[in-house]
Order: sequence, then C-alpha cells, then structure tokens
Amino acid sequence: MRYDIAILGSGPAGLSAAINAKVRNKNIIVFGNSNLSDKIVKAPKVDNYLGIYDTTGENLKEMFKSHIDKMGIEITEERINNVYAMGEYFALMVNEKTYEATTVILATGIEYAKPIKGEEEFLGRGVGYCATCDAALYRGKKVVIVGYNDEAEEEANFVMEIASNVYYIPMYKGEYKLADGIEVIKDVPIEVLGDMKANKLILRNSEIDVDGIFFIRNSISPKYLVPGLEVEGGHIKVDRSMRTNIKGCFASGDCIGKPYQYIKAAGEGQVAALNAVSYIDKK
Amino acid sequence: MRYDIAILGSGPAGLSAAINAKVRNKNIIVFGNSNLSDKIVKAPKVDNYLGIYDTTGENLKEMFKSHIDKMGIEITEERINNVYAMGEYFALMVNEKTYEATTVILATGIEYAKPIKGEEEFLGRGVGYCATCDAALYRGKKVVIVGYNDEAEEEANFVMEIASNVYYIPMYKGEYKLADGIEVIKDVPIEVLGDMKANKLILRNSEIDVDGIFFIRNSISPKYLVPGLEVEGGHIKVDRSMRTNIKGCFASGDCIGKPYQYIKAAGEGQVAALNAVSYIDKK
Ligand SMILES: Cc1cc2nc3c(=O)[nH]c(=O)nc-3n(C[C@H](O)[C@H](O)[C@H](O)COP(=O)(O)OP(=O)(O)OC[C@H]3O[C@@H](n4cnc5c(N)ncnc54)[C@H](O)[C@@H]3O)c2cc1C
Ligand SMILES: Cc1cc2nc3c(=O)[nH]c(=O)nc-3n(C[C@H](O)[C@H](O)[C@H](O)COP(=O)(O)OP(=O)(O)OC[C@H]3O[C@@H](n4cnc5c(N)ncnc54)[C@H](O)[C@@H]3O)c2cc1C
Repeated sequence: MRYDIAILGSGPAGLSAAINAKVRNKNIIVFGNSNLSDKIVKAPKVDNYLGIYDTTGENLKEMFKSHIDKMGIEITEERINNVYAMGEYFALMVNEKTYEATTVILATGIEYAKPIKGEEEFLGRGVGYCATCDAALYRGKKVVIVGYNDEAEEEANFVMEIASNVYYIPMYKGEYKLADGIEVIKDVPIEVLGDMKANKLILRNSEIDVDGIFFIRNSISPKYLVPGLEVEGGHIKVDRSMRTNIKGCFASGDCIGKPYQYIKAAGEGQVAALNAVSYIDKK
Repeated sequence: MRYDIAILGSGPAGLSAAINAKVRNKNIIVFGNSNLSDKIVKAPKVDNYLGIYDTTGENLKEMFKSHIDKMGIEITEERINNVYAMGEYFALMVNEKTYEATTVILATGIEYAKPIKGEEEFLGRGVGYCATCDAALYRGKKVVIVGYNDEAEEEANFVMEIASNVYYIPMYKGEYKLADGIEVIKDVPIEVLGDMKANKLILRNSEIDVDGIFFIRNSISPKYLVPGLEVEGGHIKVDRSMRTNIKGCFASGDCIGKPYQYIKAAGEGQVAALNAVSYIDKK
C-alpha cells in the first residue's frame, strides 16, 4: 500500500499537517508517539498559542489529541530510520519494515544535544544512530549504546542478543529496563576515536574500547534521516512553501528553524500539508 | 509617545503577534476592529485550527478575544492610511492623527477584490483609497465613493460636508447610514477613464463624470500603505524571519501569501513579533 502523505513526527507541526491533509481527503500515515511530543507534555505553562490562554503542555496535548481523535487520525508508533527518495515515491524504513508514500512531511523537531567530537567523522564507520538496523554487523562484538531516552533501552536489549558485550550509557534519569549482561556506565561521552573505523569512546572519567557506538537521541540528524537533504546551520532548508530540495519532500516545525514555538510549527505544518496536497493533485 | 511595536490588523496574524510581543514585555499598539476580523466571524465551520475542532468563526473569535482580554491587550479601532519609514521610527497616519513606533508589523490581510481597469493608472491623480485624507482637494467638486464595507459610509458622510456632490456605490448589502444629499448608485464599477486626471467612472449600466473616485476596501494595497515596500505578485515580500525590505518593518498572514488560513497566519504573526522583539533589543 502506498500512502499519499507520510508525516514524520507527532508534535504540533506533524499534527497540523495531518489535520489539513485529512481535510483534503488524502490518505495519510503519521509516525510518532502516543504522548504526541515530549516538548508538548513537558511545558509547565503555555500562554502564546492564540486562542488557548494560560494552559499547561499536558492540557494542550489533550486538546491536540482530541482534535485528531475526532478526525479519525491515528498515530503509528514507529521511529523512521531512513527515508529514501525513489523517484516516484519515498521508501520509509523502520528496521526490517518499509512504508511507501508519494510525499513526505518531515516534522521531526530538533535535537538540542550536539554531536560529540568525532561522532560525525566516524558516522557510518563504527558510529550509527540505529542500533537495531545495524546490529547484524556487530555479531560477537563490543557495542556501546548512548541512550537519550528510554526507547534506547529496547535497542540495547536487541543488540545484546547478537553482540558479545553491550555497554549502556544513559543520558537521562530513570529506571533502566535492560536485559541481563548489559553493563550500565554512568559517565559522559566526550569523544569518538579511531583509525579507519571508530574503536574507542572517551568518557569524562573513563574510556572503552569498542567496535560500534550508537547514539540514540530523540531525533535523528535530518541529513542522516534523508540522504541528499539540504541542511543549513543544522536546520532543513525549505522555501516559503515548505519544500525541501528533494521533490515531494516537505518539512516544517522546529526542524526547519527558529523560533522554536508551537503555533509557528503548527502554521508551517499546515503550509507543508497544503503544498503536498497540491503536489499530489498535479501529478 | 513612541510604541515599541505597532501592529496593523486584528486578524489571527496581528493577534498572535500581539500576544507574543506582550509576553516579551514590549509596549505595543494594535490597530484593527473590535469584531477582530470579518474573515474570522464569517467562517461557518472551522476544522483545521489545531487544538480547536469543529467550531465556528464566531466561537473562534470569542476564544481569540478572551485570550487578548486576559493578557490586557486592547484594540485601537483606527484604520491606518499610511506608514512612513522615518529612519529611527515609523510614522503611522490616521487622517489627522499620527502614531509613532520603532517597529511595524503589517497583518492587514488580503483584499480579494482586484483593482478595476484604470484604477492603478490614475491612483494619486483623482483616484484614492482614503477619502477623509484627501477630502480637502475636492471642495465643491464631484466625488464617487465605492464602498466595500460600512466604514465607507462614514467616509462618504465626511466628504459630503466638503464636496458638492457625493455618489455612493455600495459593493455590499445592508442598510446604508448616509448623510442627506448623498446619491446611492446600485451599479458595478468597470473602469476609470481620464486624461491627466481621472474624470469618468464607467459602470456596468451607466457612467458618471467626476473629479475624484475613492475605493474604500477592507484593506489597502500594501504598496500604497507603506511607500517603498517590496511587493511580489500582490503579496508583501518577506524572508523566513518575516522581515520586509524595509528595516524594522515585518509582515505576516494573508498579506504575505497563500495559503490563506488562520493558523498559518497566527504562526507567522508569532515569528514576526519575536523577530521585531529581537530587532528592538539589538538597538
Ligand atoms: C519544556 C518546554 C516548554 C516549552 N514551552 C513552550 C511554550 O510555552 N510555547 C511555545 O510556543 N513553545 C514552547 N516550547 C517549544 C515547543 O515545544 C516546540 O517548538 C514544538 O514542540 C515544536 O514542534 P514540532 O512539531 O516541530 O516538534 P516536536 O514537538 O519536537 O515533535 C517532534 C516529533 O517527531 C517525532 N520524531 C522525531 N524523529 C522521528 C522519526 N525519525 N520517526 C518518527 N517520529 C519522529 C518525535 O518523537 C516527536 O513526536 C517548549 C519546549 C519545551 C521543551
Ligand atoms: C468565509 C471564510 C471562511 C474561512 N474559513 C477558514 C477556515 O475554516 N480555516 C482557515 O484556516 N481559514 C479560513 N478562512 C481564511 C482566513 O480567514 C484568513 O486566512 C485569515 O483570517 C487571515 O488572517 P490575517 O490575520 O492575515 O488577516 P485578516 O483576518 O483578514 O485580518 C486583517 C485585519 O487587518 C485589518 N486591517 C486591514 N488594513 C488595516 C489598516 N490599514 N489599518 C488597521 N487595520 C487594518 C482588518 O480590518 C482586519 O482586522 C476563511 C475565510 C473566509 C472569508
């Protein structure tokens, strides 16, 4: 099955794109989380979303949720690892699964954490962002997972079935639900070292010799998510119609630039959706 | 008194700009209408404003109104005729009054009615958009007012005190509260004719010899409103930060381009306000 529009992200940008595409009767799929977005639920007080004064992120989430529920829009709880432009359509990869869509709207938000030293240099050569995708390469080897959220725990557990050693470095507080054999290291990654391939992770108070290092953050660098995507200063480059440099691929919200705000993201999601709709209708 | 930010328009773009500027403690003035915007109150059904599902324009207006009321934002019911960039500040002209502001956010919406034939050619030469401003030029002369809303009636009444003849051509239905002596013509303007100056208005079924013709529409052409403003295809040209070509002058909403939608306008109003704030803070 091929969708008209695949929307990556369930924050205000992605949801606004979804309702506007749905109003135009497009066949859509929205990837994200059932809690919508951490950046919504964690806001203590919201005053600047026109029409909804003096509310909390939690309440705003309920209002957004109710809106999409009433329109019959569901969220597919999957994290897209890669989006490939195939010409007539896009292939969206989720570990072993593939989704197809005629157009894509990137609404993946922004990851504040900067890459550490050496990370980008060794990307694809011992450094990766999707442990489950690449696990097969590390059979019987030593792997570090740097986890920025609890979804990373699942990735670590999966890799543990294949690798000889898995070190888990949590960058957040909480209970870690990790498989037996995984070693938790509470330290801060500083630098990736290596020759042809990464082979060492330097931490603030220690170092580990490894074969593979995975950084599991809330969002993947857009360049890595969509090969060939034009990025400028860390943000996806778009025009006023929210078109990226790749035909049929649109973007909106924090991932395209500041200010990082709800209604700015929602407005852009709408523009992206309406332009995706007219792109499809012209085909 | 000089305001930090003058906002022209009380539609979603202007109101979103207002609340975001107010959150940042700026001293603002918002020009517009107490009913906010015709384009809000007249919407029969609104489904695509994220967070507020299945509502009416009237209800949306109440939510917007309550938001600005609670933040202590008032609307100054005046129609700005001209905005002049004075270097360090802007002068905003309302007939005989002048307001001053360090920055301006244009959120004046879009007028769907296209200029009629000859209108732009004779603009400033017998054709105008503000009858009260130019009334003095027409002492003892014949003036036509083409009114697109009831505010035009006041303009006609004012001109009647000075001109010898006033013809009122209403482009809307309703009761017309017009001074004695004003002749109402129910016909459709087609073309302005003249030599050096306009001297004739051709209507579908008749024609009138005149000295002055005023078109009173819901919004003034941005080029005429702000001399020197760069316009492209009928829309004010802005960059992604909502900056126009004039320093300190920002724009957002329908007046900068399609799609014509509430949350797109609100998002852009926010971006304009936050960039106006940082422009002021850098000064
Ligand atoms: C504590 C806090 C308070 C805030 N308060 C305010 C406020 O008062 N007012 C205001 O206007 N703004 C506020 N913000 C900013 C606002 O939250 C963001 O600007 C807004 O959420 C951005 O929306 P977005 O849709 O672009 O991205 P996000 O809300 O970040 O949503 C991105 C979504 O994409 C998903 N995603 C990412 N990658 C993938 C992938 N590969 N596959 C599938 N899904 C993916 C994420 O899981 C997430 O659901 C606040 C932010 C924080 C953190
Ligand atoms: C019948 C109808 C139904 C619609 N339904 C929907 C819908 O369901 N969903 C949706 O998203 N959009 C809808 N729209 C479109 C939406 O109304 C507009 O895109 C939106 O109102 C634009 O907001 P804005 O703030 O840019 O301008 P506007 O809402 O047009 O506001 C402009 C304001 O500026 C004021 N103004 C203009 N010139 C001056 C001046 N010189 N001085 C002072 N004030 C001035 C005007 O009086 C007005 O208050 C609808 C429009 C109509 C007409």
